[in-house]
Amino acid sequence: MPRIRLTVEYDGTNYSGWQRQENAVSVQQRLEEALYKLLREDTRVTGASRTDAGVHALGQTVHFDTASRIPPEKYAFALNTMLPDDIRVRASTAAADDFHARFHAKGKIYRYMMFNSPHASALFRNSHAHVMNPLDAALMDAEAQAMIGTHDFKAFAASGSVAKDTVRTIYACRVARSGDEVMLLVHGGGFLYNMVRILAGTLIQVGCGKLERGAIERALEGRSRLSLGITAPPHGLTLMRVFYEDDTDEAEACFDGILNRFSR
Amino acid sequence: MPRIRLTVEYDGTNYSGWQRQENAVSVQQRLEEALYKLLREDTRVTGASRTDAGVHALGQTVHFDTASRIPPEKYAFALNTMLPDDIRVRASTAAADDFHARFHAKGKIYRYMMFNSPHASALFRNSHAHVMNPLDAALMDAEAQAMIGTHDFKAFAASGSVAKDTVRTIYACRVARSGDEVMLLVHGGGFLYNMVRILAGTLIQVGCGKLERGAIERALEGRSRLSLGITAPPHGLTLMRVFYEDDTDEAEACFDGILNRFSR
Repeated sequence: MPRIRLTVEYDGTNYSGWQRQENAVSVQQRLEEALYKLLREDTRVTGASRTDAGVHALGQTVHFDTASRIPPEKYAFALNTMLPDDIRVRASTAAADDFHARFHAKGKIYRYMMFNSPHASALFRNSHAHVMNPLDAALMDAEAQAMIGTHDFKAFAASGSVAKDTVRTIYACRVARSGDEVMLLVHGGGFLYNMVRILAGTLIQVGCGKLERGAIERALEGRSRLSLGITAPPHGLTLMRVFYEDDTDEAEACFDGILNRFSR
Repeated sequence: MPRIRLTVEYDGTNYSGWQRQENAVSVQQRLEEALYKLLREDTRVTGASRTDAGVHALGQTVHFDTASRIPPEKYAFALNTMLPDDIRVRASTAAADDFHARFHAKGKIYRYMMFNSPHASALFRNSHAHVMNPLDAALMDAEAQAMIGTHDFKAFAASGSVAKDTVRTIYACRVARSGDEVMLLVHGGGFLYNMVRILAGTLIQVGCGKLERGAIERALEGRSRLSLGITAPPHGLTLMRVFYEDDTDEAEACFDGILNRFSR
């Protein structure tokens, strides 16, 4: 059966996360329901990242197999007529028969947004974590550089996490400010469960002086969660893009583009 | 009684607009309810702009009178504990006894956001109007310059509008693009009902070639609504700021700041 690849954007606010589960509505379920309406066949979709409840995506990558002869590029338009308006298919293409959205992912870019002001924002309430204490974004950016490289990120694993291999590679990690908004942008080969939210929580505490500079380096050396900050709330997090090529030029250009559009 | 001035941000998605009305929840009603909870006295608030259903504000300006001796700057924090999270008071200060949020306004900046892509956006669904046809933002920006100056804007008055004096002054009007986003930013001394949305609808049609360049100039000369575009949907519109001083330097700096942060 031909395999189709989708790029999916969603607002995670009203979902229990990406993955299908009992008694709660997930993004995966809504996509599979839309495919059933379109194709009249039960279709299972696989996503690159199992984002949590409240977490958003601009570039979740998804694959599924179908016997339908609908031209691959038509799925985006057709599915968008069936989906709720907080889930949009942004692109659809033919994929190689062995393409796997999760297992073949070579890298991902995540963004974590903070709104740094004494008062919370109404318009950003579902997209930015509110931080009342003034944040030193330059200090956070400097601290974030300790993430770069291949490390055992055991300290960044959520308690109760089952991951055995906690070694991951981070290619780029930057913090920037634009007015009241502070953005954390991170590009890695892979991420542990809650890793970006633990990183965001740690950088917030370093940025407002509640954790000392060097906290990340010490935590990586000691492989200890205890010296890091709290896990930042899910709604600040967005999966921006998933990469499937070893070529890192495209990923670097994508990362720099997001950073420059935000902070120039 | 002392007069208090508030700067209010809201997401207009779930409201019938600014102004109180029967059988629908308005932003004004929610603010007055919050003031009642706080002060235990019936308090009437006056807003600078009676924004429509779905229209947002980052800087709606509001005044009210109270016998309470709460320090003026404390209202923002106190009201935010009483308000729903899609309405936030961003600042509160003491106002002159004769300060009037609506009648004393000398100028306003409005922003109209478009998402220009074949597919709609999930994350921007409540903040940007979706425009499928490719928009020439430079052409829209050139067309928008016909708005500048003092004109009879009768052509921009909503049908059935009761405004007798349709002369207004527009100080600045720009269109810019950043990726898939197109922003219209307009600063004027005052606006007719639906004026910015008629302007946005007209510029969209000029930008995708459905209306000829010069449409605004011809409409102003003929004072005719017929040669302009449709009224763009409310959810793209945000009231950014209200000005009360004759000094235009502050307004110009505010306008340029919004434009530069968006399009650099």
